[in-house]
Amino acid sequence: MENQFYCLVMAGGKGTRFWPESTTEKPKQYLSFLGKDSLLTKTLFRVEGLIPSENRYIVTLKEQEKYAKDFSKGLCAKEGLIFEPSGRNTAPCILLALAHLLDNGADLDDVVAIVPADHVILNEKGFRETLQICFKVALEHQSIVTIGITPHFPHTGYGYIQKGSRVQDAFKVEGFKEKPNLETAKEYVASGDYFWNGGIFVSQIKTLLKEFEELAPEMFKHFNSLRGNPNNLKNIYEMMPSDSIDYAIMEKSKKVMVVPANFDWNDLGSWEALESLIPQTDGNTIVKCQDNYLENSKGNIVYAPNQLVTLLGVEDLIVVSNDKALMILPKSQSQKVKNIVEFLKKNQSTTKYL
Amino acid sequence: MENQFYCLVMAGGKGTRFWPESTTEKPKQYLSFLGKDSLLTKTLFRVEGLIPSENRYIVTLKEQEKYAKDFSKGLCAKEGLIFEPSGRNTAPCILLALAHLLDNGADLDDVVAIVPADHVILNEKGFRETLQICFKVALEHQSIVTIGITPHFPHTGYGYIQKGSRVQDAFKVEGFKEKPNLETAKEYVASGDYFWNGGIFVSQIKTLLKEFEELAPEMFKHFNSLRGNPNNLKNIYEMMPSDSIDYAIMEKSKKVMVVPANFDWNDLGSWEALESLIPQTDGNTIVKCQDNYLENSKGNIVYAPNQLVTLLGVEDLIVVSNDKALMILPKSQSQKVKNIVEFLKKNQSTTKYL
Repeated sequence: MENQFYCLVMAGGKGTRFWPESTTEKPKQYLSFLGKDSLLTKTLFRVEGLIPSENRYIVTLKEQEKYAKDFSKGLCAKEGLIFEPSGRNTAPCILLALAHLLDNGADLDDVVAIVPADHVILNEKGFRETLQICFKVALEHQSIVTIGITPHFPHTGYGYIQKGSRVQDAFKVEGFKEKPNLETAKEYVASGDYFWNGGIFVSQIKTLLKEFEELAPEMFKHFNSLRGNPNNLKNIYEMMPSDSIDYAIMEKSKKVMVVPANFDWNDLGSWEALESLIPQTDGNTIVKCQDNYLENSKGNIVYAPNQLVTLLGVEDLIVVSNDKALMILPKSQSQKVKNIVEFLKKNQSTTKYL
Repeated sequence: MENQFYCLVMAGGKGTRFWPESTTEKPKQYLSFLGKDSLLTKTLFRVEGLIPSENRYIVTLKEQEKYAKDFSKGLCAKEGLIFEPSGRNTAPCILLALAHLLDNGADLDDVVAIVPADHVILNEKGFRETLQICFKVALEHQSIVTIGITPHFPHTGYGYIQKGSRVQDAFKVEGFKEKPNLETAKEYVASGDYFWNGGIFVSQIKTLLKEFEELAPEMFKHFNSLRGNPNNLKNIYEMMPSDSIDYAIMEKSKKVMVVPANFDWNDLGSWEALESLIPQTDGNTIVKCQDNYLENSKGNIVYAPNQLVTLLGVEDLIVVSNDKALMILPKSQSQKVKNIVEFLKKNQSTTKYL
């Protein structure tokens, strides 16, 4: 029997960096900054022609069911939505999803591509070509293949992958490095030996499970109990140690290889990230609005889908306005959106804005 | 028969300085920046106890009927709404209103106070005391009495009234001065001889009509035709020369006297004007919003009645957000709201925002 290819979209993120547009019920993956499709929809479309829709699954949270369903309609398997019973980070989440895949007809020999739901990749052809290489490498070497993004500046917010010796189209992995300081990040970029970790993994199911068994036995011992939709799923799930796939498996495994990305990549870490993706309007980034009047204003990033936006004599601001909230802050302080979110969390009367 | 007192509220303004909240259909006089009552409602309440509601009339435009009616309910005469057939400035408008008053039972000997609908006066008691002095002066001297506002800085956007010799509680008027340059305005303020023209006039009806007859005969000759709700009102009205009451009558009349205001006064000339009327919130003027989060932000003026407003690291901005539009500009450029309005007028697709 030939190997089947599966796609597992990780859509459980509750990202608050795009507040006020991103909310608990509708996080980033369900937003559509570029065109009309949500990031989740674009993620599913991206594997078109490579992975059939009936082999696509989405892991998310129950509170996101409505949007997950809406934005994956016709683009994933019939039983394509997998709900985390609670938040236990990515490692238990992947085990839960693999159990679901096997329950729904996947074979241990089949290959799964695990991809985040909320990244932007414009070059879809390049993405598919890279993914095909990953499939080949994963099968030939029984490895867990990560996609490495060539860094184009010393970003201190990403994990880095140090490459080892070349093996045909891939590289062995020398090591995973946590978010570096700027000095270290500069060295990484200058050396040419490091990739950004884009959070995309490809592996045969059996390879992944074997690594879980060996490297995370306390977690893996519950795997069989997750099979067949048990009644006490939540209890089982909550017995599993909370950990990320990076810590639990990738950083420890000897079977990891890295394939360089042959495509652009943007994880949309903040409102500011949209600046490089959207054509300028008179020197401003108008993500969405009904109409605009811009006088003597430049460098602003604006998202106000339901309004006429008029800016006069203002520069380098992030301006977000929706039915519930209005946020204005300088681009240079874009990371402080989290301060607002933290404040809103603390007050019962303001949690409705999250 | 004792003299009756009437109030004529001039509510036909189409002010655009409070765009986007002020629109063609709902100009400034129908907005409520301070508390829940509109400026029109507050204007009518202000004469409570001095002029009975059945003697209060409102001149406005047909397109403002809905709001004029809503905001004057129970506070003006049964036939209290007078509609200008078209815009001919204040002089024909006042003649039209006087015809309507006489048609509805007013006597030529009665006294009318003509007041703008869109000014803010907090000291209502002081206003009523001043108005009572005006009534007395108007009757004793058969004069047209204006209320003079003591200038508290050399404003270049107002007309000034030069006072002459004192006559009991009033002054004769030496002359009306148009908007001065800053140098001249400074001299006016320093001299102590000038008032701001607050646009409030008190006179017996017969005195006003006599002055119209003498000083604006081309206009006055149509007065009798305006009586009795003629079918061709619009035609008659449009034959009258368009002119302001200031140019047509006040600046030429020898019968004008001025009574100093014993109250605060603010004509709300721009969003910035609200700064002196609303208590500060952490150094900002939050006119309206649902909730707010202000971090490292000061000097901003915010009007966003339906939203949570979050400002972080921004200063001295005017921020206005409603269902249709969002406007952001520095306070120092508040007069440029008119640029936006001019732009919106020019484009058929954008007139819906006016």
